[in-house]
Formats: sequence, C-alpha cells, structure tokens
Amino acid sequence: MDLICIRRPDDFHLHLRRGSVMRAVLPFTEQAFARALIMPNTTPTEIRTAVDAAVYRGEMKEHCRRGFTPLMTIKLLDRTTPHEIIACKSAGVIAGKVYPQGVTTNSDNGPVDMHVLYPVFAEMERVGMVLCLHGEDPKAFCMDRESVFLAQLCEIARSFPKLKIVLEHVTTLQAVGVVKELPDTVAATITAHHLYLTLDDVIGAKLHPHNFCMPIAKRPEDRDALRRAVLSGNPKFFLGTDSAPHTRETKECAEGCAGVFTAPMVIPLLTSFFEEFEALEMFERFTSESGARFYGLPLNEEKIRLIRQPFHIPEVIEGIVPYLAGKTLNWRIE
Amino acid sequence: MDLICIRRPDDFHLHLRRGSVMRAVLPFTEQAFARALIMPNTTPTEIRTAVDAAVYRGEMKEHCRRGFTPLMTIKLLDRTTPHEIIACKSAGVIAGKVYPQGVTTNSDNGPVDMHVLYPVFAEMERVGMVLCLHGEDPKAFCMDRESVFLAQLCEIARSFPKLKIVLEHVTTLQAVGVVKELPDTVAATITAHHLYLTLDDVIGAKLHPHNFCMPIAKRPEDRDALRRAVLSGNPKFFLGTDSAPHTRETKECAEGCAGVFTAPMVIPLLTSFFEEFEALEMFERFTSESGARFYGLPLNEEKIRLIRQPFHIPEVIEGIVPYLAGKTLNWRIE
Repeated sequence: MDLICIRRPDDFHLHLRRGSVMRAVLPFTEQAFARALIMPNTTPTEIRTAVDAAVYRGEMKEHCRRGFTPLMTIKLLDRTTPHEIIACKSAGVIAGKVYPQGVTTNSDNGPVDMHVLYPVFAEMERVGMVLCLHGEDPKAFCMDRESVFLAQLCEIARSFPKLKIVLEHVTTLQAVGVVKELPDTVAATITAHHLYLTLDDVIGAKLHPHNFCMPIAKRPEDRDALRRAVLSGNPKFFLGTDSAPHTRETKECAEGCAGVFTAPMVIPLLTSFFEEFEALEMFERFTSESGARFYGLPLNEEKIRLIRQPFHIPEVIEGIVPYLAGKTLNWRIE
Repeated sequence: MDLICIRRPDDFHLHLRRGSVMRAVLPFTEQAFARALIMPNTTPTEIRTAVDAAVYRGEMKEHCRRGFTPLMTIKLLDRTTPHEIIACKSAGVIAGKVYPQGVTTNSDNGPVDMHVLYPVFAEMERVGMVLCLHGEDPKAFCMDRESVFLAQLCEIARSFPKLKIVLEHVTTLQAVGVVKELPDTVAATITAHHLYLTLDDVIGAKLHPHNFCMPIAKRPEDRDALRRAVLSGNPKFFLGTDSAPHTRETKECAEGCAGVFTAPMVIPLLTSFFEEFEALEMFERFTSESGARFYGLPLNEEKIRLIRQPFHIPEVIEGIVPYLAGKTLNWRIE
C-alpha cells in the first residue's frame, strides 16, 4: 500500500505562541490538521479570559488558511472566576487548562492547590467546558511527577462526575491504567514523540536537548504502555502533539527549554508508526476521530492523503531544530 | 570554627585531558591535591600501555608544580595482554580502568563482555594493580545501568579474591549496599557533585547540561545513601572527583558531553558538606586517608588550610562552565 487516505486530523494539544513565531509555525499545522486546540500559556501575554481568547483567535484567523479552525482555551489561575467561565463559553472557548505551578514552560503563576479551582471546575461542568490537565505534581521527583498527580485526577473526576477531563500528554504505564479505569468522562492525549522516546534518548551517553520535553520521557515499559493504548484503538486516547516551537538558542544553552517541535512531520511519523505496528486501521481513529468525539465536535469531512515517498526532515526549520532533524521518513502528505 | 586544617587530599578519579586543556586545568587540582589518579580515556591518543602512560606522565610532569604526583592508569581493552600488565606495573602504573563499550565519553572501544578481560584481571591480581570499574551496563535503561552492573562486580570480586577493585563514582543506594557487603578488597569512589545532584537538577523544569554527567544523578534516596556512606566514615568510600573539563560549546549543543568540572571548588564544597552535616571529623578521612590506604600509598604529610571566607565561583573558567558557576561558597583554600 503506497497511498493512505484518512479524515483530516485534529491536534488536541498545540503550542503556537504569538506574533512572528506563530506565523512561522502555523503553516506546518495547517498542512496536516483541520483543527487544533491552542494552548494558552503564551508570553508575554497569556490567554486568561474570553477577551484574551477572542483577540488571540483574531490574530490566528488573520494568518491561517481558509478552513483551519483554532480551538480556543484559557489558562485557569487561582483568580479565574466561575463568571469568566460563562463568558468563555459564550465566546466559543472549549477548554480550560491547568498548569500546576512550576511544572513546565510559563507555569509560574499556576495553582499550588487544585481545590482553589473547584468552583471553576463546577461551572465548567455545568456549562460543558472541557478541563485539560497538565498532570504532574511539581513537588515530586521528575520521574514520579505524573504518577503522583494521578490521585488528584481521580479526586477531580470523582468530585465532578459530568466534567469532561483530558489528562494531557500522558507518559506512564500508571497514567494509562488510571485513565482506562476512570469513567468515560476522562480521556488522555498522547504525543507522537512519547510513542518513541525514553529517557535514554534524552540523557543517554550524550545529552539531547531536542528530545527534552515535559513530561519527561520515561522508561521503555512506559513507552510501550502508550503504544498499546494507541494501537488498541481505545477512544479514550487520542492525538495531542504538544508540538512546541523553541528556537535552537533556547534549547542548546545552560538552561534549556522543554518542548519538542513535531508539527512539520507528526502525521507522516504516525503513518510509519501505525504501519510498523500493523495497525493502520487505528490510524484515523487516533488522529481524526476519538478526540473530536470526546470534545463533541463534528468529524472532519475533508480527507488528507499520505503517499509513500521519502520525506527528509530539515536540520532547522524557522530557527527551530525539529524532532528527528536530518532523518528521513517513508511517508509524506500529498 | 573559621579555620580547618587537613592532610592534603588525593583525588582518586580525575580527567585532565592533554595539551592545552591539561595545562589549563591542572593548576586547579594542584592547588588542592597532593596526588590524583589520572583517567586514561584521553583523545585523540588514549593511554593503553606502559609506554603511553610514561609519555603522558612526562607531559604532566613538565607542567605540574613540585610535589604534585599524577598516579597513572591504563585503559583496559579486549586486546590488553597480561604481559602489558607486567610492563605497566614496572612503569609505576597503579590501576587499570575498564569502560564498558558505549557507556560514556570515549568508550567506543571498551569491552562488551567482561570475561574477555579475566586473564588480565588475573595478572593484575598477581602483580598488585588496582582494577577501576566504570560500573554501568550500557544495555540497561539509564536509571538502571549501575544497579544492573552490580552482578558483574560481584562476579569479578568472587573470581579474583585478592584483586583490589574500585567501583568508580557510585550513584545508587544499591551500589553503596553491595560495596559495603563485599570483602574489603572492594571499595568505591564518590564524587562531590553526586552528593548534591539528583536527576531533578539535570532535567527539572529546565535542562541543565552543566549538571549532566555519567553515571547520571539518580533519585533523592540514592543521593542520600551516598551522603550516609560518606558521613559514616566507612573507609570503603573515598573521594574521586571525576572532574571533567568539557568546554561550554561541547556542553551547550545538540549532543552534549557528560561530565562536571569540579576541580576548582571541590575541596571548599566538601568542607561545606561535612560542616552542614556536622561530620567535619570525617572530612580528612574521606578526602585524604581512606583512598590512600586502599591503594597502599603513604598518607600525605603536607597539610592544607581551609578558611571561612566567601569563595565566588566564576561563570566560566578557561572556556569551561564549572559546577556551581556563579554561586558563592563559604570556604576557600588558604
């Protein structure tokens, strides 16, 4: 088979930034995706309110191709009010994202205690807005941060039984297990790079800043659990690339930023992944169906075609070293 | 107490390199140490034979201060012969170092199977040369490499009951436990930085290449086991700094080198360490006595004095970002 045709994918976790970076990286996502859930932790101004989201959407709309839809989120802070949730819902914001304080890029003002946000979660449950969790406890040892957070996930799911919750970019066997066991209101995104990386690829014999991301890639058995979750076709697990554009200078330095830039090759890479594991029948479900269904969005009608042709990934794209820089994939988007 | 006087320390694990780098970094070790065990994995020419060691010693002697003694090692390879061990012993080489293939900087030609070296180990046992092991199994997951290697350590110790063995730069609770349990022919070096670092300091919210070393820093409970081993005064554990001069460019890049440069501040740092943990009575034993006794060397007669004065660590020293760059310690060498 040298041609694969699937419903155009959605990316349920994307960092676009603003201004010139946004304009530079947006085309890569537009090429492959119909919609993307745009993360709100932008700098210098982050997306905290309905007004912020409207302004940010306007910026994107000015530059993006016809037919590409940015799905808007806000960042939930201690000061976020239930009233703001109502305003956001009216403005078409579909999710609120929590970054526990200190857990990743631009998270210094995140909540320390999740309970402070419970009135906000209650309002989100009432109006039907999705809660997206960066599910790591920053007080735990780096390899344990996600598994330690799972107790908080379970408590939130129990306290708000109708609230839709996405545990973002899961990386552990434990997280996969807990998400499976929780009710259908709880799902998880999985990135393409976490289907490949282990900690060995970050701190093996050499240090590889371009494989450094949060949550950090874990053990081989964790990666294998992610693979099984994706290959099983379980609709609770769908694609959120977490593609993050950090320039080479901010990665190759004394305090390197966390994030992997996968937008330019993520769909070709996933084609190879599903082919390698002989599960191409699950490809469309993971990239284009399960996420939309969970979010209650219509499935995309448009299709994209993947053709079996060498796809060389440049060493640098717009000042950013992409994932798998210099490597060649077997598939490309037609 | 504002003045501490101890027997001049020995560093039983030091990377000096050759040429201009060696000339640049040697003074920092000479300032604090009477002797240092010089690692043989130099490039482009490594130290494999008695002749190599004699030439390398000559290079150092040309530049080092009167009274500083480099203790010579060779790198043990599959091709190393028992005959070469005899030649080395005559030439004053005191230890042979094994780097399992692929385990760290300049280890591509190391042995894959330790048994190939057993005839060499037998000769070392006979002539009285110490075996230094980089004790990691490169096939294991990075966090497990040291603990997986321990079975090989036990087998070597059992097979060569009179061979003195040093497990270099131990980093895990398991390694400390195994070294304690093995006979007195088996000891371990501990670096200063592994008494402080955990993996959180390498891949916490940011990536910190200047804290990246092999073996990688492990979990808090591992670091605490190293601390207890050192603070207990157990003579099986002594200082080997593993100070390694990598330039900023080779650390802050897409494939960063492993190694931490501690020579300029390691003794002041250890003074703070023993003071902080109220075990100053163990300071001299760890830095200046246990190692010499294990190697069968006379204790140094000369003393050094540490005085309580702010010691500011530069951001860069000779093109190298040192450990704790920009920080200030409470002690300095008089």
